[in-house]
Amino acid sequence: MAQSVLTIDLGAICANWRALAAMNAGETAAVVKANAYGLGAGKVAKALADQGARTFFVAQAEEGVIVREALGTGPTICVFGGHMDGDAPLLRDANLVPMINSIDQMLRHVEALPGHPFGIQLDSGMNRLGMEPAEWAALRDIALSQKPVLVMSHLACADEPGHGMNEFQLQTFRQMTDGIDAPRSLAATGGTLLGPDYHFDMTRPGIGLYGGLPFVDARPVVSLSIPVIQVRDVNPGESVGYGNSWVARVPGKIATISAGYADGIIRAMGPKAHVWAGETRCKIVGRISMDLIGVDVGPVKEMPDTVELLGRHQSVDTLAEAAGTIGYEILTSLGSRYARRYIST
Amino acid sequence: MAQSVLTIDLGAICANWRALAAMNAGETAAVVKANAYGLGAGKVAKALADQGARTFFVAQAEEGVIVREALGTGPTICVFGGHMDGDAPLLRDANLVPMINSIDQMLRHVEALPGHPFGIQLDSGMNRLGMEPAEWAALRDIALSQKPVLVMSHLACADEPGHGMNEFQLQTFRQMTDGIDAPRSLAATGGTLLGPDYHFDMTRPGIGLYGGLPFVDARPVVSLSIPVIQVRDVNPGESVGYGNSWVARVPGKIATISAGYADGIIRAMGPKAHVWAGETRCKIVGRISMDLIGVDVGPVKEMPDTVELLGRHQSVDTLAEAAGTIGYEILTSLGSRYARRYIST
Repeated sequence: MAQSVLTIDLGAICANWRALAAMNAGETAAVVKANAYGLGAGKVAKALADQGARTFFVAQAEEGVIVREALGTGPTICVFGGHMDGDAPLLRDANLVPMINSIDQMLRHVEALPGHPFGIQLDSGMNRLGMEPAEWAALRDIALSQKPVLVMSHLACADEPGHGMNEFQLQTFRQMTDGIDAPRSLAATGGTLLGPDYHFDMTRPGIGLYGGLPFVDARPVVSLSIPVIQVRDVNPGESVGYGNSWVARVPGKIATISAGYADGIIRAMGPKAHVWAGETRCKIVGRISMDLIGVDVGPVKEMPDTVELLGRHQSVDTLAEAAGTIGYEILTSLGSRYARRYIST
Repeated sequence: MAQSVLTIDLGAICANWRALAAMNAGETAAVVKANAYGLGAGKVAKALADQGARTFFVAQAEEGVIVREALGTGPTICVFGGHMDGDAPLLRDANLVPMINSIDQMLRHVEALPGHPFGIQLDSGMNRLGMEPAEWAALRDIALSQKPVLVMSHLACADEPGHGMNEFQLQTFRQMTDGIDAPRSLAATGGTLLGPDYHFDMTRPGIGLYGGLPFVDARPVVSLSIPVIQVRDVNPGESVGYGNSWVARVPGKIATISAGYADGIIRAMGPKAHVWAGETRCKIVGRISMDLIGVDVGPVKEMPDTVELLGRHQSVDTLAEAAGTIGYEILTSLGSRYARRYIST
């Protein structure tokens, strides 16, 4: 088989959820948008519901439908994108709760689905989603009289605990919501780690569940094993891969492994990334191709049938560093060609 | 709907195939690996088979099974990765033709599937897949006596017509194969454009079918339309998105659009990329998030409901430039959350 195997540890995801829940006196929800950060929204949501998670967040109504199918009736499924034009049948049939982001969305919601539950998303400074303070001031009394199930906002810099933006957004959120009679939520994973001031009634961890920073104590969740197609000797002067960008200076040994940027192994990481052959760290050489990668396996004594890109030796955040990005993008890029194996340890 | 719409023009793919076929006296195959460069292997292969394509290439046996289901019996489906351990049932049941890359693979093939068709892949200098000259010299007579359906190699620098590597690989391939009694193939899209010396008995275009460089005359194939969730005013000093990396200097207007790096909009392109709102080019501002992107829509007179990331105004190669990559990676990264619409113009 030339198919790589992505192993997803649902037990680790559940352990991470419990660890984040233990930091927090209120409810701990679970963010399963973007197909649970690439790991399978249905399977992840079900495992977390079995642990006691009662509220799930997705980005779009279409994602909510998939999560509803996996969870059945019961758990609450919230949609960050709110109520978009054309969403009403999805929101109604799958019983999804839109986080209303603007007066336009509010009007659309009460017209299309009067009485249907909703939440409110406020902009506390990120200028991405949610109502501005002035918008909220105009709508607040009417909106609150309709009993929103949640009033929430999102932090822009929670990954940097020392950033002044955190305190600024906290104060803004407080000014916008203190004294209201509705549950409040401000923190995702980073905000959860900022401490109790940020927790309010509900936290909404995402990346921490999936083993990524800023939750440094997270249990790793994914490992990725890539088959070796062939191994060859190269002589000094021979090049490897597209554009002849890598040239052997000494006699060496190159393995061609069966994955590439079409599998979400970001092409830009080529010059800095490594894989592991058993206990030996091996440099990627030449450009990453669509389906294939060259690896310098000169130092490897006994060549295994597969190499590890993610796992015991290398986390999503280490790999992200090689790609000049963040662990989140490594996860959401994980490709559809991988065989996905679910375990629970 | 917060779901973006990816429109794929099968008619344009077919026109590109015909244009490349017209350059070439021999057979023109079609490379549909990596889910037809992200555009849907089944639908693309079927459209091309209807145009007369008789040979298709995939990277792995698992992909070949999917293409076989779409095509039914008849067309030849070749697997670049060759015959890997465990592949025999897939190769046999889906009637796939492995391109044998090494003596190990050859032994595996004749043991597991004696009499089953195969091709030979030779390494003419890229050091990625295929038999080295010495390996081929040892195996050549035995392999040829088994009547391979194809003997092929792949060019490392065909996107750069002036690169000396092209002539070097051509000569190497000739030395390894001149006089054999089997069909030969060296060229993908780039090689097809290098001229008749490179065509041999079959060309194997991939990227050119899908509208990407180096086939400058290709018809564009994809367009991507992203819904606007909301539009807000920002004052000087206000920041947008994660990490406060973008700060407004003058009063402005920001649209939040419903797609992000989880949809394959590579995070690294943030600082350089644009979308189009109608006829107005609008800069992406702030970091690209997982599901959301901020766009400066200050210059837009009448705000449309959706913006264009790919399409009439912006090709996959233009977008690739913003991301510091190649059009191929833009295509293969196209996300699974998009609604895919197939048209034929």
